[in-house]
Amino acid sequence: MTSETAYDVIVLGAGPTGENLADRTRAAGLSTVLVEAELVGGECSYWACMPSKALLRPAAALAAARAVAGSREAVTGTLDAQAVLDRRDSFASHWKDTGQVGWLDGIGADLVRGHGRLAGPRRVAVRTPDGGELVLTARHAVAVCTGSRAALPDVPGLAEAEPWTSRDATSSLTVPGSLLVVGGGVVAVEMAAAWQALGSRVTLLVRGRGLLPRTEPFAGELVADGLRAAGVAVRFGAEVARVQRDEIGQVTVELTDGSALTADEVLYATGRAPRTDDLGLATVGLTDGDWLAVDDTCAVRGVEGGWLFAAGDVNHRALLTHQGKYQGRIAGAAIGALAQGRPLDTAAWGAHVATADQAAVPQVVFTEPEVAAVGLTAEQAERAGHRVRVVDYDLGRVAGASLQADGYTGRARMVVDEDRRVVLGVTFVGPGAGEQLHAATVAVTAEVPLERLWHAVPAYPTVSEVWLRLLETYRDSSAAAPE
Amino acid sequence: MTSETAYDVIVLGAGPTGENLADRTRAAGLSTVLVEAELVGGECSYWACMPSKALLRPAAALAAARAVAGSREAVTGTLDAQAVLDRRDSFASHWKDTGQVGWLDGIGADLVRGHGRLAGPRRVAVRTPDGGELVLTARHAVAVCTGSRAALPDVPGLAEAEPWTSRDATSSLTVPGSLLVVGGGVVAVEMAAAWQALGSRVTLLVRGRGLLPRTEPFAGELVADGLRAAGVAVRFGAEVARVQRDEIGQVTVELTDGSALTADEVLYATGRAPRTDDLGLATVGLTDGDWLAVDDTCAVRGVEGGWLFAAGDVNHRALLTHQGKYQGRIAGAAIGALAQGRPLDTAAWGAHVATADQAAVPQVVFTEPEVAAVGLTAEQAERAGHRVRVVDYDLGRVAGASLQADGYTGRARMVVDEDRRVVLGVTFVGPGAGEQLHAATVAVTAEVPLERLWHAVPAYPTVSEVWLRLLETYRDSSAAAPE
Repeated sequence: MTSETAYDVIVLGAGPTGENLADRTRAAGLSTVLVEAELVGGECSYWACMPSKALLRPAAALAAARAVAGSREAVTGTLDAQAVLDRRDSFASHWKDTGQVGWLDGIGADLVRGHGRLAGPRRVAVRTPDGGELVLTARHAVAVCTGSRAALPDVPGLAEAEPWTSRDATSSLTVPGSLLVVGGGVVAVEMAAAWQALGSRVTLLVRGRGLLPRTEPFAGELVADGLRAAGVAVRFGAEVARVQRDEIGQVTVELTDGSALTADEVLYATGRAPRTDDLGLATVGLTDGDWLAVDDTCAVRGVEGGWLFAAGDVNHRALLTHQGKYQGRIAGAAIGALAQGRPLDTAAWGAHVATADQAAVPQVVFTEPEVAAVGLTAEQAERAGHRVRVVDYDLGRVAGASLQADGYTGRARMVVDEDRRVVLGVTFVGPGAGEQLHAATVAVTAEVPLERLWHAVPAYPTVSEVWLRLLETYRDSSAAAPE
Repeated sequence: MTSETAYDVIVLGAGPTGENLADRTRAAGLSTVLVEAELVGGECSYWACMPSKALLRPAAALAAARAVAGSREAVTGTLDAQAVLDRRDSFASHWKDTGQVGWLDGIGADLVRGHGRLAGPRRVAVRTPDGGELVLTARHAVAVCTGSRAALPDVPGLAEAEPWTSRDATSSLTVPGSLLVVGGGVVAVEMAAAWQALGSRVTLLVRGRGLLPRTEPFAGELVADGLRAAGVAVRFGAEVARVQRDEIGQVTVELTDGSALTADEVLYATGRAPRTDDLGLATVGLTDGDWLAVDDTCAVRGVEGGWLFAAGDVNHRALLTHQGKYQGRIAGAAIGALAQGRPLDTAAWGAHVATADQAAVPQVVFTEPEVAAVGLTAEQAERAGHRVRVVDYDLGRVAGASLQADGYTGRARMVVDEDRRVVLGVTFVGPGAGEQLHAATVAVTAEVPLERLWHAVPAYPTVSEVWLRLLETYRDSSAAAPE
């Protein structure tokens, strides 16, 4: 016999996306329950953004002090790895979710701990930790916010070798003497940087010819330079043939070129898979294990009645915490409006559509140098059919940057839509570049004409004066200069 | 006998404002000459922005490293004052203007060294360093870009005591053992912070009850806290009655309350005066020594024929280098258009009006914490008749800020125009807050509606997530929440 409880809204997954969605459905007066099998707060809080940034920040702060004559002389010691790990533990709330549960209480949402699966339309069966089952029914909507997990490729010996995934790399309590990192994306480069700074001898094995393949090519090049300068061995064109862990715990990675590398640990950071394999998707006509395709309101396509939503990584629009939170707010507002019988505002940039997912996704990679990008790269903009002008500027030539760090090295790129004279995308690479990004995000999102951006005067001498330099470079490269 | 040379445009003063103006008149094909009595590059390059930020940056970098567990342990030494001073010398180009002269050459502008004075309409007489005189005539325009100087109040004994002004405070080759700073504005607080960090015992004497009177009140409060934490003695309500330097060089400042303080040097940073006292203004019907009132194109009011322009500090619109450069670009473009017989674009935010001077002036104060502000304060917005909502947020509660520095202390304020639902002003106070500002400057300048700002997603976990928090705080404080 199972009990059955009805809510207006059921949210599967209580990470940041689910939390934001529930916050909005609660604000709309809808009774809301979240179902969570692990920790409330999700991947970001315990095994991604928070601990990874906590691991990276001390090294960045130290590098910044070392980069300036006068403060450099005061840095006579080295990073205290144990202090960094302790601080990381604190930012991961010691892997306890008491604080986040309190927040859910505060918004008046219910929490059911256990593994939730769809059991037909508007119906969720929860296997609770004590082995029982609870059935929840939704009067208005079910929202899937279960996120993604690290996906391991089918490499001989890999699973048996128990490689680190992003979870281990962000939560390890000790510093391995040596670490192999397989991958060239954000997790790979951030964790290579973090563990090298903490004292590990890191080798980065990249299958392709560059890092961060979805960003402007110079971003990956500058990050590779930075990793090498920090002591990371970076190998491109490295395809793994086999992985083996020996009896004393050492891991050997054999490459297809016949060479082999041995280290204390290997981190696999080669991709993500949706957490949809055991969600009961088949009970509502979808395919278990698939990413969930959604429209701009985050309603799942191909489900009758419009009651199923999916926000965050699981819909594969933009696998970033902040974008999941954004979708959570949008989807929650849409569910609220539908429940109240109000029309949805689905025009571009309306209150119920996640337009930014297509046009203005920001991302920061917290390496040294940092990479900060929003909107389209030059290649993406051209492929999308825009008439594009690419404007590059050497960030180190900005007075504010040279004041910030001796020998500041970095680069900025602005991608301009020549027809509308708006900014389609911006990439900054350099120490501390992450905090430069939001100005670009506002400019891209608000589609501010270049003519107006000229009136947005950067304060002198900040790094943000790069905006003036980008505009000047654009102007001076124009056949028909505006002035 | 004097030689006489005709140019399209004569620029008095080759600081950043004059340089930017000349750059635009040259781009319009107008022959242009700059007249400079001191160094090409002006106050900013040698005695203001560049050296002051160079003095402040090392201490900020060190404070940032000390603020994080893990890097804190590596900072076992102290700031190397001589290295800071040497670095400052380098950023002040060792007070040589060779580089800037080369830049002027590059744009094809002429340079005349000497003191220029108006000698009737479109006519400038230059007293050259060799004692000769040169007369320049302008076919189209004369632009006054002579800037401002420190103004000393009429205090008994002050002039004889040879106090430091901003020039001395930014260029001193030695660190005084003790320093009295009189004033509560930007120069006073920045130089108090800089010299205290370099080893001086600094006392800040403020006539009023708060610092930085033109910013939000909390900015001055947090800066006062920061100065005190750094060891600066801050005294409010301190009115100077008399100043005296004794025979061994010590300066004594007597206050009106009868108390007295003695130190190695006293810095007076109580105000600025226009450099117009010896410009021949009377020869064109203006008053010597006055600030030059201009319209939004920077044309001087009350001069017939529209040939006289004034940009930068000297017009008293906004005494900031970046705003002077902005005005220089605007005025140069206006002069170019007029010379070519094209109509001026004088609608708000047009190409030939310095609209930002009224609506969106950014400023960063490089103290610890930094103050970054743009647009109107709450009080200014109310006084201007806007229906205002003030949104405050504790910056230390932003995840990105707590990751950046343990115990991050700061505050953000957004001033919203309730009728237009746009942002009128933003103030950030906190370590590193200066680089947060440009996003606000774009939002204020572009008059981005709050509804669109919701789609400008801040990257997690950066400090810029404060934007999400400000929007949430606004929403949740609304009687009729937008969504």
